[in-house]
Amino acid sequence: MNIAIVGLGVIGGTFAKAIRSHNEDHRIMAIDTNLETLKLAQDEGFIDHGETVNKTVLQQADLVIFALYPEVMKEYVRTHQNDFKAGAIITDTTGVKRTVIASMADVIPEQVDFIFGHPMAGREKRGFEYADASVFEGANYVITPTDRNKQENIDWFKDFLSHLGFKRVTMTDANTHDEMIAHTSQLTHAIAVALINSDDRSHETIRFIGDSYRDLTRIANMNEKLWPELFMNNKDHLITYIERFEEALRELKTAIQDDDAHKMEQIFKESTARRVKLQESDLRVK
Amino acid sequence: MNIAIVGLGVIGGTFAKAIRSHNEDHRIMAIDTNLETLKLAQDEGFIDHGETVNKTVLQQADLVIFALYPEVMKEYVRTHQNDFKAGAIITDTTGVKRTVIASMADVIPEQVDFIFGHPMAGREKRGFEYADASVFEGANYVITPTDRNKQENIDWFKDFLSHLGFKRVTMTDANTHDEMIAHTSQLTHAIAVALINSDDRSHETIRFIGDSYRDLTRIANMNEKLWPELFMNNKDHLITYIERFEEALRELKTAIQDDDAHKMEQIFKESTARRVKLQESDLRVK
Repeated sequence: MNIAIVGLGVIGGTFAKAIRSHNEDHRIMAIDTNLETLKLAQDEGFIDHGETVNKTVLQQADLVIFALYPEVMKEYVRTHQNDFKAGAIITDTTGVKRTVIASMADVIPEQVDFIFGHPMAGREKRGFEYADASVFEGANYVITPTDRNKQENIDWFKDFLSHLGFKRVTMTDANTHDEMIAHTSQLTHAIAVALINSDDRSHETIRFIGDSYRDLTRIANMNEKLWPELFMNNKDHLITYIERFEEALRELKTAIQDDDAHKMEQIFKESTARRVKLQESDLRVK
Repeated sequence: MNIAIVGLGVIGGTFAKAIRSHNEDHRIMAIDTNLETLKLAQDEGFIDHGETVNKTVLQQADLVIFALYPEVMKEYVRTHQNDFKAGAIITDTTGVKRTVIASMADVIPEQVDFIFGHPMAGREKRGFEYADASVFEGANYVITPTDRNKQENIDWFKDFLSHLGFKRVTMTDANTHDEMIAHTSQLTHAIAVALINSDDRSHETIRFIGDSYRDLTRIANMNEKLWPELFMNNKDHLITYIERFEEALRELKTAIQDDDAHKMEQIFKESTARRVKLQESDLRVK
């Protein structure tokens, strides 16, 4: 099978590495504007062929994986409408789905099947050199099918993802995806940013941190070009979940202010029970 | 040297394991109400001797490490005032310092030197079986000296901690400790609890989480008997930092509501710069 990855950053790179390590038979091609990245990926054996601008890659690819910013992807698909192979499966890795699916509708060419998806696995660092196939192991994947998708292609793609190490491949509608992601991904990033930015004594903080602070601020390393777009494209759900979180924090704050140990105990028992449940049903929870 | 650990839970157990793995010459004794734990620790070679109630341990110990809840420790020291060896160094591992130091002042016997300290390294799970010496490697330790401490004992204790793997041993006053910890430890726990408790669809969430959600909720597994006391004993600083965090989150929320991509970019650049700085100066940051 001929697979093309468009955009060989940390996500595209993780696909290349995961495909290579699990399916040695596939031919992996990549398109990236950075020639050095393509050379590195080829020297390390993760891709078989690379092009900085498409000449032959899209024409050969049975599967095209886009790992580009949403707006860049749309423009790319529009420009290359006639270059895709007939019957090819195309997929994206974008973190919001309603706006992307709506926006892409009029640029997807007839001859391909565009299956929208989202790997719930990433890294806060940018660039192919930080790609690590192990982050897909045991991770979640969400597919948001449209009316245009063929069931046999979706089934094939789910199977393909399972072979890359993904544990749960969930099919859902775009709105449900966006709502859930507002809580599990966007809110967590907003919290990490607010936590590290609320520190007024950062030159001393380094001497007082433990693993909790390290863990909660890891994702504060944000791609500032990507995230504003993701947040604005999911504004309704994200604001709802920020406000739910604010309310939960306010409830705890009130208990502290009132020296209400009993209320705090209830809150901590609830959080502990939820976390234990999470741990029991998720492979990647430490 | 004879070392006694009082309370062989996850923190006491980590001391036993770290001391054993770094200083083979020390004789390690433990007091714990759970006989099974003592047997396990002895069978695994981490302690040389254990007692469920003190008979000979305190009388022999040159160093006593308390890993008990604050109130329990106070009662224990009061009851055993006459059992400590003359000249012994005693230390605690309590997460708040102003109230504990004030509360302990009238029960510390004359013949010992009580050095208050706080390892900035823990685990969200309870019990000796979760103790892991590696959590001390590269971690921070804070010592809050009092007027009664002898400088030579503090110097010795700092050196002892460095040998257990701690990277930075910081000396500061109790108020500064409590203020910094309000941000780095207590606020982070409050956030994790509020995040997981604000989830209204937890049976589905499991299919949508990535590592950010796993990391941010890890510490939501809270010991509900310990934390209310820690929070209430640091209420002033904790409320201040919760409110600073609320303000930072509100600022981001406003930018999202206003579709203010430029403001978001600024906020994300700031958080990224802070996180990169943290990473450059901390051993344990991944």
